[in-house]
Amino acid sequence: MKIYAAKNAPAPVRGLVRDLRPLWALEEIGAAYEIEWIDAGAGEQRGDHYKAIHPFGKIPAAIDGDVTMFESGAICIYAAEKYQALGAGTALWPLVLTWSFCALDQIYPSLFERFVWGHFRKDQEGSANIVAAMTERANANFAVLESELGKREFMAGPEFTAADVLMGSALLNARTDDLMAPYPALSAYAAGLYERPAFKKVHAMNGVGPA
Amino acid sequence: MKIYAAKNAPAPVRGLVRDLRPLWALEEIGAAYEIEWIDAGAGEQRGDHYKAIHPFGKIPAAIDGDVTMFESGAICIYAAEKYQALGAGTALWPLVLTWSFCALDQIYPSLFERFVWGHFRKDQEGSANIVAAMTERANANFAVLESELGKREFMAGPEFTAADVLMGSALLNARTDDLMAPYPALSAYAAGLYERPAFKKVHAMNGVGPA
Repeated sequence: MKIYAAKNAPAPVRGLVRDLRPLWALEEIGAAYEIEWIDAGAGEQRGDHYKAIHPFGKIPAAIDGDVTMFESGAICIYAAEKYQALGAGTALWPLVLTWSFCALDQIYPSLFERFVWGHFRKDQEGSANIVAAMTERANANFAVLESELGKREFMAGPEFTAADVLMGSALLNARTDDLMAPYPALSAYAAGLYERPAFKKVHAMNGVGPA
Repeated sequence: MKIYAAKNAPAPVRGLVRDLRPLWALEEIGAAYEIEWIDAGAGEQRGDHYKAIHPFGKIPAAIDGDVTMFESGAICIYAAEKYQALGAGTALWPLVLTWSFCALDQIYPSLFERFVWGHFRKDQEGSANIVAAMTERANANFAVLESELGKREFMAGPEFTAADVLMGSALLNARTDDLMAPYPALSAYAAGLYERPAFKKVHAMNGVGPA
């Protein structure tokens, strides 16, 4: 499988580019993959060559044989199913799907908007109000995750699955300013994810490119 | 499978409640299901009984045998895989996943925030600015969908799949104020989805309850 990933990205998004998700999943699986680096600093993702692969001009995308895909969540679920790994083919799969979609649709959006309006749109009218609303939503979400993570080690059960790749990736936007600090079980969960060798390997390159 | 769905919801969200997604999917599949109605007007979804099923207190949730799930996207993908329908088990599946996640993660969030800040948070500082930003994002997204829908009948290919359930549901938030009007292929695609008997059946009950 080939993953299109960002190099030379602007400083604020390094470590947060969503190619982290499929690359982390493939590293955890132990599957062979190659990376095609897209020069995000030069806006290569918005050029015609890349848009023929990903019509929205966003990173990541993936090619596997005659399959061309995009959306980081889709690529992670596809990879899990292809290799019957990260919870696919087990009784946990319905909960892997539940917590994977939860990570992307419940947890990530408020963290993403909080980042956008706290950085790139900081000087716009109402940005402080939007950041406050998104922070409130993030805290409400974190209170639920704190309770859930008191019941089991990983999101979907006792084993690391694709849901942890997606939740851990989503939570990166809350890591940089200690938003998770009041939630000890959530903080410990995230810290454990970020110590995994597969995460460390791909996160070190994230948004930057090969060492 | 049992789906928890909203009845007695506030007027602005009737027709937009996300239980539409799994119910539409199950109707398209032709699978047996039952509905347990949650009184959204009375806030039943935030009570302890329902939160034992869905810890975030949101609608929908699903129970299938000993499996308890939530997240509308997860339930749709689970149902497609369980019944090997709506694209599951076919060569289209990677693109079904791509466009399903695209609907929820690329298309829906700006439409949802636009709705929230244009209705419930309308009187807050900066609401007009965030609505304008989200409208701009929605239009950029719609331009891409317009181009894609010039190439094929449905999101993932020549057949209706789970991706159309999720995209059609996401686009409902743009239907009420003609945001899709400048995009003829997108408008025709959405109009076709909304004429499907399965959609009409579940949409008529959406947020209201049984007739």
